[in-house]
Amino acid sequence: MLVCEHASNYIPSHLSNLGLTEDVLHSHVAIDIGALELAQSISLLLDAPMVASEVSRLVYDVNRPPNALDAMPQQSEIHTIPGNLDLGEEEIQFRVNQYYQPFKQAIKKQLAEFDQKPILITVHSFTPVYHGEHRSVDVGFIYSKPNSLALNLVSRGQQQEDFNVQANAPYGPEHGVTHTLDLHGNENDLLNVMIEVKNSLLETPQQLELMARFLATLISETASSCGYSIPPDRNHAPLF
Amino acid sequence: MLVCEHASNYIPSHLSNLGLTEDVLHSHVAIDIGALELAQSISLLLDAPMVASEVSRLVYDVNRPPNALDAMPQQSEIHTIPGNLDLGEEEIQFRVNQYYQPFKQAIKKQLAEFDQKPILITVHSFTPVYHGEHRSVDVGFIYSKPNSLALNLVSRGQQQEDFNVQANAPYGPEHGVTHTLDLHGNENDLLNVMIEVKNSLLETPQQLELMARFLATLISETASSCGYSIPPDRNHAPLF
Repeated sequence: MLVCEHASNYIPSHLSNLGLTEDVLHSHVAIDIGALELAQSISLLLDAPMVASEVSRLVYDVNRPPNALDAMPQQSEIHTIPGNLDLGEEEIQFRVNQYYQPFKQAIKKQLAEFDQKPILITVHSFTPVYHGEHRSVDVGFIYSKPNSLALNLVSRGQQQEDFNVQANAPYGPEHGVTHTLDLHGNENDLLNVMIEVKNSLLETPQQLELMARFLATLISETASSCGYSIPPDRNHAPLF
Repeated sequence: MLVCEHASNYIPSHLSNLGLTEDVLHSHVAIDIGALELAQSISLLLDAPMVASEVSRLVYDVNRPPNALDAMPQQSEIHTIPGNLDLGEEEIQFRVNQYYQPFKQAIKKQLAEFDQKPILITVHSFTPVYHGEHRSVDVGFIYSKPNSLALNLVSRGQQQEDFNVQANAPYGPEHGVTHTLDLHGNENDLLNVMIEVKNSLLETPQQLELMARFLATLISETASSCGYSIPPDRNHAPLF
């Protein structure tokens, strides 16, 4: 099962773009660029169900619990989010009830539909440059609780030379990014991992397809080595 | 069951905003303003599942089949959509496979989960002024095949004086807007209707809650008169 928490830069109109410029609204600050398309492509290749958020992480970051300070962030990288300063109780409840709770319920409902224990994989993208620093990693596998899927994805991923694969990079569980994994994966004793892909590798449909096939094959082979049966994508019909 | 086809103004980054200005991207041209929040609120009030599109209708209008001329519209109201002119086959297939097919499958899958025949309701919003004309209708119930739900929603809706309720307004099935209703509703012999709400009535959380409660009550009472059992929303806990 795939989850895409930062799939969209949609901001409901009553929030007036949260006071941000259009450049920011179309950047990694508001959305994981290419993540929805990458997750959807992997979903098609592996015939895996997907749950994606409808809303920008700046409105409500569904990868954060309501009590997290950055669930409705006042700051993101170098940007202050004016529309998130001094939020009233009614607006907070509106966002939690409209965006977080239904997303959480959708994942729970999907998980309950499997006959056997599924693997839970969240799909994200990251900016190549953050706070001025260039990141060397291309694909990161992030986990809070080491498990055979995550560890084997790293070791298998590091056996190829097309992409720089690393564990818990460009950040790790200490940054509070594993809420979905913890709540739905570790709580239910599911194999789980968060995939982070450099967004400069997801700029065109061709790049998206290349990365989706790379990851779908890696996931399929690794899951197989963990005793799971996932249809391999190698002979799948063209995606587009 | 609720469906929201025009829930988002999200445009994938490789399409460079389809060449449109930010004013257009945040208008009814790109999105049914307030429709996602209205549908989500009705979903909460009636405990009804919802399927919503992740993508702007300008990228792919999931309320249109792939062979419709306006599935990837080159023109919307007075605006030409530069990024939809001269589309190549690969881009067309990308959009159909990424956005239309998964949306269609999500509805099919949800419909298959009901033990009894559900009612299918799609939720939209419209602009108060179109091609310079002010629209008098506040809430329209649109249907291609007259059915007891749709007809009774109109007659019951017209018995109150808070909102101007009309049948097949501000447009009707002759405008090609009933693809979801036809494909998933009429094909499966389900009671179905499309709700259109004037977006000036959906600008704030307070307005959204008022309209959601009005519609949830009307739907619940009308469905009951059609022999369906839907929990009434009257005594529901506060939405926000």
